[in-house]
Amino acid sequence: MTVTTPQGFRAAGVTAGLKASGKPDLALVVNDGPSKAAAAVFTSNRVAAAPVHWSRQVVSDGRVDAVVLNSGGANACTGPTGFQNTHSTAEKVAEVLGISATDVFVCSTGLIGEQLPMDKILPGVEAAAAALSTDGGPEAGTAIMTTDSVPKSALFIGTDADGQEFSIGGIAKGAGMLAPGLATMLVVLTTDAAVEPELLDVALRDATRITFDRADSDGCMSTNDTVVLLSSGASGAVPATDVFTDGLTKVCAELARKLIADAEGASHDIAIRTFNAASEADAEAVSRSVARSNLFKAAIFGKDPNWGRVLSAVGTTDAAFEPDQLNVAMNGIQICRNGSIGDDRSLVNLEPREVLVEIDLQAGDAEATIWTNDLTHDYVHENSAYSS
Amino acid sequence: MTVTTPQGFRAAGVTAGLKASGKPDLALVVNDGPSKAAAAVFTSNRVAAAPVHWSRQVVSDGRVDAVVLNSGGANACTGPTGFQNTHSTAEKVAEVLGISATDVFVCSTGLIGEQLPMDKILPGVEAAAAALSTDGGPEAGTAIMTTDSVPKSALFIGTDADGQEFSIGGIAKGAGMLAPGLATMLVVLTTDAAVEPELLDVALRDATRITFDRADSDGCMSTNDTVVLLSSGASGAVPATDVFTDGLTKVCAELARKLIADAEGASHDIAIRTFNAASEADAEAVSRSVARSNLFKAAIFGKDPNWGRVLSAVGTTDAAFEPDQLNVAMNGIQICRNGSIGDDRSLVNLEPREVLVEIDLQAGDAEATIWTNDLTHDYVHENSAYSS
Repeated sequence: MTVTTPQGFRAAGVTAGLKASGKPDLALVVNDGPSKAAAAVFTSNRVAAAPVHWSRQVVSDGRVDAVVLNSGGANACTGPTGFQNTHSTAEKVAEVLGISATDVFVCSTGLIGEQLPMDKILPGVEAAAAALSTDGGPEAGTAIMTTDSVPKSALFIGTDADGQEFSIGGIAKGAGMLAPGLATMLVVLTTDAAVEPELLDVALRDATRITFDRADSDGCMSTNDTVVLLSSGASGAVPATDVFTDGLTKVCAELARKLIADAEGASHDIAIRTFNAASEADAEAVSRSVARSNLFKAAIFGKDPNWGRVLSAVGTTDAAFEPDQLNVAMNGIQICRNGSIGDDRSLVNLEPREVLVEIDLQAGDAEATIWTNDLTHDYVHENSAYSS
Repeated sequence: MTVTTPQGFRAAGVTAGLKASGKPDLALVVNDGPSKAAAAVFTSNRVAAAPVHWSRQVVSDGRVDAVVLNSGGANACTGPTGFQNTHSTAEKVAEVLGISATDVFVCSTGLIGEQLPMDKILPGVEAAAAALSTDGGPEAGTAIMTTDSVPKSALFIGTDADGQEFSIGGIAKGAGMLAPGLATMLVVLTTDAAVEPELLDVALRDATRITFDRADSDGCMSTNDTVVLLSSGASGAVPATDVFTDGLTKVCAELARKLIADAEGASHDIAIRTFNAASEADAEAVSRSVARSNLFKAAIFGKDPNWGRVLSAVGTTDAAFEPDQLNVAMNGIQICRNGSIGDDRSLVNLEPREVLVEIDLQAGDAEATIWTNDLTHDYVHENSAYSS
């Protein structure tokens, strides 16, 4: 269940020496075709890292032959030197693989504002190329980890209308700065289905909009977030657009859940579902406002079903609702009814890691869910004691 | 330097028994005139507490005779019963003072979603009325405290064009949920200058816009925030509008600084100044975005001058700037220059409690400063271990 499960891909993960820990820190994923179709989505942060600028150009023609990823340095806010370093990395990959640098997609993650040690990156690329294999996906998934405690991967297997099987595999990293329009999150998705670049792009945007874009661990948006999708077409399957998009969405949703479950320092995974909203946009805005309330998130850490902090956050939005018609349930207990006191809050059990907050706007029939985490001592510790 | 320093005011603070701790929890401030002019600003949270709904009506005619405030319960999200309790409180104040209930302004602060114990509030009002005195301001300031560690007050003394002296005094409470359009913050301001209600309103909005509205401790907006300004006219001074507004702004700024300095669990007070912006709105948006970045705030707690997290937050705004022209200084050290690496970050000293972050957008000549705090273990502890 990784990026080398679909046919037509090789991958590798090696230790280039970027991380002081000596753990793997450089990954390579290669599409051996026959198709090299690709699509990608990037952070909407205007302060985007050098590899984001580079890779936006690379994917603009719908073709990507290889993806090189490094942890141990974000190469963000590094000026012209940083961009040159991304370029040189792509050139090196092109050289060792015999492809064009303009088909080499580059991703970086780690501390912002430090130049990458190119004397380690370039030999690392050579080592990764030498290690490429059709079962190298897990090694690639491990090499992109930063503060992640576990590697994340997912797989979907489907069939096209003719019964031809295809698969979609993915690896992801990210355990903080999970936020709007992605996260400090790098995701590589591969498929052996034959899908044109235009359809890949549409499917990827549809899938990420309701998965990664709705994972909002701490409201902070990274400079480097990237999701890239490669199609080899090696299975020969040509799935219908909705079949492919559905499978892709499942893979993205599974990876998004794994990112939230591994968020830095979290002790609860919180799903905030807003329903009976006048529009999906309203529902999303309300859920996201609650997901970004430090007071609410700290209360959940303290296992306090503090619905007042939920309503405080809801009240800051301009969604359609009447304050005296709001209902809030936590883990199934209706603790707020019609904007006022509902069932006994002591009935709410917040011992489990999974928390479901349901907000009924009584204003329509749309809904949306945002996934977030609680605010914990460990979050503060991890984000104050270490630079990232 | 309190609300009874200006002539024409009496105040009191008593223990009504709302707080389990037995500390003072009910305050009364009375304007003995000759003028009873007043103005107020309230939370913009759509989920507003019962006393906010009531007091909006009370002040709408520009007259307030008395302000009654309780800690130990917010009376928010309490439905029709909650509104009736606010009404009853105002009626009780009117009865014991021989005034109209429609001239009694009510403020509450404390836990959301619990009914007030009226069997304690009503006797408390009687006790407070009996304790009213022209030097009771400090007792009132203490009775409105919740998690505040110290009472907050401020004073401005000025003269009108004829040399007649006037003063503006204030008390404030609030130590968390400090955010946009005020905070869980109650502020009572008094002046013995003779100022018409319309001018009080303009001056109050001008003053709060650049003081309380720019104190953003944790991005959370309360259901109860209120700032009320009473004018007795007892000094006979009639200051020019700009003189009065200037004095009022100074009092508000001092109270806002004291609120930030006492924010729950904070170990640093952070001023985020954005300058060379295309507009004041841009400057404010950029500063506020940084002020709400948990990653940035946790880094400051860890004494890590992590300018990458500053740029990440700046990049999420739509302010006018070019990413490669951003400059950032922390406590005087230019750690980011033209969007890239500047001076050695190890030169930044983050040991002092006061931190100044300066963001140069190189896009104009406007500026704005937002005051916030760091994100600490104590913040998480205070907001997870106790309901509020």
